[in-house]
Amino acid sequence: MLTRTSAQTLTEQLADRFAERIRNRLLAPGARLPSVRECARQQGVSPHTVVAAYDQLLAQGLVEARRQRGFYVRSEAAAPGRPGRGAADGASAPAATVLAAAPADASTLIRGMFHRQSDKPQPGMGVLPPDWLESSFMPAAVRRVTGVKALQEFSLQYGDPAGDAGLRRSLAKKLAGIQLEVPPAQIVTTVGATHALDIVSRTLLRAGDPVMVEEPGWAVEFARLEALGMRVLPVPRRADGPDLEVMQRYCEAHAPKLFVSVSVLHNPTGHCLSPASAHRVLQMAQQHDFHIVEDDTYSHLAPEHATRLSVLDGLSRTIYVSGFAKILAPNWRIGFLTASPALVERLLETKLLATLTTPALFERALAWCIDQGQLRRHVERIRLRLDGARARAVKLALAHGCTLAAEPAGLFGWVQTGVDTDTLTQRMLDEGYLLAPGSLFHARRAPTTLMRINFATTQDAAFWKTFVRVRDGL
Amino acid sequence: MLTRTSAQTLTEQLADRFAERIRNRLLAPGARLPSVRECARQQGVSPHTVVAAYDQLLAQGLVEARRQRGFYVRSEAAAPGRPGRGAADGASAPAATVLAAAPADASTLIRGMFHRQSDKPQPGMGVLPPDWLESSFMPAAVRRVTGVKALQEFSLQYGDPAGDAGLRRSLAKKLAGIQLEVPPAQIVTTVGATHALDIVSRTLLRAGDPVMVEEPGWAVEFARLEALGMRVLPVPRRADGPDLEVMQRYCEAHAPKLFVSVSVLHNPTGHCLSPASAHRVLQMAQQHDFHIVEDDTYSHLAPEHATRLSVLDGLSRTIYVSGFAKILAPNWRIGFLTASPALVERLLETKLLATLTTPALFERALAWCIDQGQLRRHVERIRLRLDGARARAVKLALAHGCTLAAEPAGLFGWVQTGVDTDTLTQRMLDEGYLLAPGSLFHARRAPTTLMRINFATTQDAAFWKTFVRVRDGL
Repeated sequence: MLTRTSAQTLTEQLADRFAERIRNRLLAPGARLPSVRECARQQGVSPHTVVAAYDQLLAQGLVEARRQRGFYVRSEAAAPGRPGRGAADGASAPAATVLAAAPADASTLIRGMFHRQSDKPQPGMGVLPPDWLESSFMPAAVRRVTGVKALQEFSLQYGDPAGDAGLRRSLAKKLAGIQLEVPPAQIVTTVGATHALDIVSRTLLRAGDPVMVEEPGWAVEFARLEALGMRVLPVPRRADGPDLEVMQRYCEAHAPKLFVSVSVLHNPTGHCLSPASAHRVLQMAQQHDFHIVEDDTYSHLAPEHATRLSVLDGLSRTIYVSGFAKILAPNWRIGFLTASPALVERLLETKLLATLTTPALFERALAWCIDQGQLRRHVERIRLRLDGARARAVKLALAHGCTLAAEPAGLFGWVQTGVDTDTLTQRMLDEGYLLAPGSLFHARRAPTTLMRINFATTQDAAFWKTFVRVRDGL
Repeated sequence: MLTRTSAQTLTEQLADRFAERIRNRLLAPGARLPSVRECARQQGVSPHTVVAAYDQLLAQGLVEARRQRGFYVRSEAAAPGRPGRGAADGASAPAATVLAAAPADASTLIRGMFHRQSDKPQPGMGVLPPDWLESSFMPAAVRRVTGVKALQEFSLQYGDPAGDAGLRRSLAKKLAGIQLEVPPAQIVTTVGATHALDIVSRTLLRAGDPVMVEEPGWAVEFARLEALGMRVLPVPRRADGPDLEVMQRYCEAHAPKLFVSVSVLHNPTGHCLSPASAHRVLQMAQQHDFHIVEDDTYSHLAPEHATRLSVLDGLSRTIYVSGFAKILAPNWRIGFLTASPALVERLLETKLLATLTTPALFERALAWCIDQGQLRRHVERIRLRLDGARARAVKLALAHGCTLAAEPAGLFGWVQTGVDTDTLTQRMLDEGYLLAPGSLFHARRAPTTLMRINFATTQDAAFWKTFVRVRDGL
């Protein structure tokens, strides 16, 4: 917050705040700054202070003034010469969504995820808070693999290209628990689930290929596909699965090569795929000859007996991807993929060309956590705690004038706020809260009144009180 | 070796040996098996045994018989539907080399690097042997970052997208030692230097773009560019630098977007760029508007005052890449890149989309090794030891009828054997040695009589005795 007791003038504080947001992409290139009058009112300072702050930003080259229209964040080196853009394909593919400035905008949220706004719990966060993940078994697991001999064994050679053999055995057993029967040889570890999804698209697609994604969906996935030059076809995600009629039309018009789906505990809605819908999606994949990558990032929080495309399909046209960032240790960056024997060889080759191997030490530590049953018990504790948080967060959301746009489940709530959440996000940043506005989950980045909340970080009244004050002041 | 005392028959042993090589890509798809007569002679078994073994391989679907021509490794799912191939561009770019089956072939060597052939020192290895890398400071560094509190700090959040801030500070200081002045904010850590090179090509190039590479050069780089759909333009690498006339012709005919160079201790020749050549390369980059990525993977073994393009250029058109696989811990997968402020933002975005963050724990441990001076002393010890090994290996190579095709320097020798090294490699595998044949370092995979040796693993007479026996039996 701006303060009159600071060593800095109010003008400097205000200019610094905007400058920091622009550098961290919390104000994206092309975004409009509030009008001088509006900003003065919001911050409780004089218009003169705002004008002086905006002048500083102009002098720093961070914003530009457009005649009669106000101040805009400069789009710097973004557009010209930027490769991998799908934009060039727009003309020949009228119904395909071509993302305009998605990478910059997606990195808003991504960088936000890594950037501590304040000490407050962050509603827009994509992972559980660090204190939820604390355990005594994780340090114990690391101690087991950091003895001098083990450490040298895991460090001084490149290691197995497919990933630590012990972890792949543990994963194979774990996957059998969800009826996915795969031998360790069909599993490849990756630098988180993100890397697994990246490997899949690089192996199966070439620039210009049409790819179906779910909308709303995960911004990083849209941005990644777009950066690879793919044509993104957004399929509305319903409670029971993707909109099959839209998929059918895409299949007929565009012959997509891949469908990317978070079938269980979909991000951001929390929806789970129904068996009937799963069956029809697989039929369509068969008929129109496309692959499916099933992103099961939230598997540890998933309801029992959830339907998974990979299980029904026996990994014939599906590739299964998951990871441990949401349950154990985000920074260990452990993900994995599994696919048919022929395909997994090609995926492994892409991994080798992109990163060679992955760090085996964390993989072996994770294997120990799985084998000893520690991870399973940890998951049970987290689920119970999340159930409580979810109930409280939902109650608070409703009590503060929001509704839930989807049945609450898993880690995220998809919340109807009734106001434009892009604007809301900017104003909430002044209060130290980073939100995840709905526009981030849409391929076209259309403004919306929805937002995604993390149940673990929105179960306290403090956030909702601020939310209501800011919302009502818009 | 085949043995008559084994529980397996000779036929089974022979079939298993071929099957294993095919699975590990040490016999690439499309490769021809030795003729029955040749194989029988090589292995000291009857032709009947060989015929029976080949029949088993046929039955397993691993090889196919071509009428009057012999047995060939089946190319399985390789060609059809394989995306990212540069082949389609061949017609429109006559002088650009379009790689045919490079990923499969490159993975021969890559997988070989990870696949322990035997307990013998491996001449084809790309890194120092594990026992050379052993130290007491590395485990000490890991202990420092695996206390419960530190471990949780490094594990339970995603971490800084650009990489651990402490390591980036250490790297900035380290780079100042080679006159590369960059602030930590311009450094991004990666999953090894491979990942850094991958990020650079994905950020600067789009499918179909022409890229200049050095030839001979590193097979993984060729394969990676090819898998991304790039047009690879091989520039002959001379002792003082790339062939400038060839570069000039490429610039005029193809307008390449990027030049990938291992300027110091070039792999496989060990050549170092001369200052005059560096100056002309940079002039050409300016005139023809291309970027240069300088892969300084062997920096720790480099001569003092070596000329680097990035230093001369001040990172204006150059991106500098390096890593620690060759000196500290290959499996930690720590590499990094540094570039101009505007470009580094785009490179960071690509990193985020591809893998989010990288594991901070190893990064912090490495920072400690650098800051305490431990790494510097370790480097000095390794360099001394390598000097001795190099002198012995060169003497042995010369004594066994080889010559050096380049002045010996750094880790690798570029050795003229006088015989086809693809054939030699297959026969040496029977003896438990994996070689790095010269064809792997050529963009077109042309057979050659050259091979790359690792000085650290070829300083013993045992290898050279076997080498001579096998070579003379060809």
